[in-house]
Amino acid sequence: MLTVFGSVALDTIRTPKKTSRNILGGSATFAAISASKFVDTGLIAVVGEDLPTAYHKILSKHLDLQGLAIKDGKTFRYDGRYDMTLSKRSTLKTQLNVLDSFKAVVPEAYKKSQFVYLANNDPEQNIRLVKEFDQTKFSMCDTMDLWISTKRDAVIKMIKAVDAVVINDEEARLLTKELNLVRCAKKIMQWGAQYVIIKKGEHGSLMFHEDIIFPTAAFPVGNVLDPTGAGDSFAGAMMGFLASKKSTKISDIKKALVYGNVLGSFAVEQYGLDRLVTIKSGDIARRVKTFEKMIRF
Amino acid sequence: MLTVFGSVALDTIRTPKKTSRNILGGSATFAAISASKFVDTGLIAVVGEDLPTAYHKILSKHLDLQGLAIKDGKTFRYDGRYDMTLSKRSTLKTQLNVLDSFKAVVPEAYKKSQFVYLANNDPEQNIRLVKEFDQTKFSMCDTMDLWISTKRDAVIKMIKAVDAVVINDEEARLLTKELNLVRCAKKIMQWGAQYVIIKKGEHGSLMFHEDIIFPTAAFPVGNVLDPTGAGDSFAGAMMGFLASKKSTKISDIKKALVYGNVLGSFAVEQYGLDRLVTIKSGDIARRVKTFEKMIRF
Repeated sequence: MLTVFGSVALDTIRTPKKTSRNILGGSATFAAISASKFVDTGLIAVVGEDLPTAYHKILSKHLDLQGLAIKDGKTFRYDGRYDMTLSKRSTLKTQLNVLDSFKAVVPEAYKKSQFVYLANNDPEQNIRLVKEFDQTKFSMCDTMDLWISTKRDAVIKMIKAVDAVVINDEEARLLTKELNLVRCAKKIMQWGAQYVIIKKGEHGSLMFHEDIIFPTAAFPVGNVLDPTGAGDSFAGAMMGFLASKKSTKISDIKKALVYGNVLGSFAVEQYGLDRLVTIKSGDIARRVKTFEKMIRF
Repeated sequence: MLTVFGSVALDTIRTPKKTSRNILGGSATFAAISASKFVDTGLIAVVGEDLPTAYHKILSKHLDLQGLAIKDGKTFRYDGRYDMTLSKRSTLKTQLNVLDSFKAVVPEAYKKSQFVYLANNDPEQNIRLVKEFDQTKFSMCDTMDLWISTKRDAVIKMIKAVDAVVINDEEARLLTKELNLVRCAKKIMQWGAQYVIIKKGEHGSLMFHEDIIFPTAAFPVGNVLDPTGAGDSFAGAMMGFLASKKSTKISDIKKALVYGNVLGSFAVEQYGLDRLVTIKSGDIARRVKTFEKMIRF
């Protein structure tokens, strides 16, 4: 099984075409639902009592929810607006609500989980939590500009505490103070990560491990409606695929990244989780095949 | 053989590490020298009498110069500065000089050239010139923001007059008024191009032909010194490879794009033409092999 620790949110997402208010979102939601296409996935997160029943049903349909705390108060809320190009998002409002005082705990049943994905949580929480697992085979963390700016030392400590880091290009530059992405990745590996995955949105990703570099182009999507959660879906699918294979072989990590790319490409085709909750394993397999054929030369 | 029509320049290139003054540059210089690694390449361009003998020797060492006009006056000069990230360049000065009144002519010996590359020249000149060839099998043009802003209709006419368009992502958006690159390419194909190649700098490229999309990641370079001419080297190598195979098969076009990527990656490793003039076909073959292995999964 795979355990995913991160946020569940009520998102208001404003794109040039449409504003979606209070829809189900959050980094862990996207990551865990993508992962669940491959393997049983447990979610560690917190929501408030205001989470609509319909959303709770979506979560429970796809995920194991022993790790989901339901607290007095309101669910974490995020409000953001994309620019015309859908490549830049500015935050209008963030309300931590129940997330503010949440102390995540690993349920007994999850402690044997060998694959653990820690989304862009407070790095100190991620460090504490990853230690609660008995026999981690592969742990991966994400991070974000907020933590890099406010808790850079803790972010670096977190990198030492996990096997892999997934991070977007701008945040890799911010964190390492390097501009060239190859140099960014080398620095993060020097800090102790075995694997560094740099996400480049519509441009795909770069994976680094020892002397290996694995670049992947993104699956081209002609009709991007909402990029929210694409990076989380990418990371979740990657972890889900690896957990399903119980493997950390480099050849499987490369395949996992392609599955990550493909889930990211599905995520952006509809608003919020709409596409992810409907895709079937056949859809995924077909798109992976298409991609393999596409890039062959 | 391949014919390349474009500019030869004396460039002043300011990067954060170094300013190179009055070095040999120009879109045709980069494209033709890259192409010459694969096939005999003729250059149609103009320079002034001030072009240093050393630079003339570089050109004559790699290229057929029957199409090079030497005019009274000064060579085209360009002065630009890169930002810290080496991803944005601002123009400080452009002096057209002999380029201003140049009427390009195709030498008799080039008229049988089946492969023709028209760099980012005035689109009206490109249209006129491509008609002077007797039996073009594959012609490709580039363009730039200046022409899109001042002569958009002529750019679209030029697209109808050639087989393939190579264009960078920002310019594709500017030209088509579309934001999504898949849509940009579809629009350019509707205007009459059989092949559209969108260059994305360090993120590689996307090739479109009928229903085919061929995305390629760039070859990762850890030590980028000067990105000048990378896109021209990409296009030149692509054309040089195709001309050497005398082929327009889609499988060869895909391979040609990989060679383009690889030549682009060499170009940025040194200032100006320094790396391109020293690489041997063995270096190219090794990097193509490395790339093939790198992206396999």
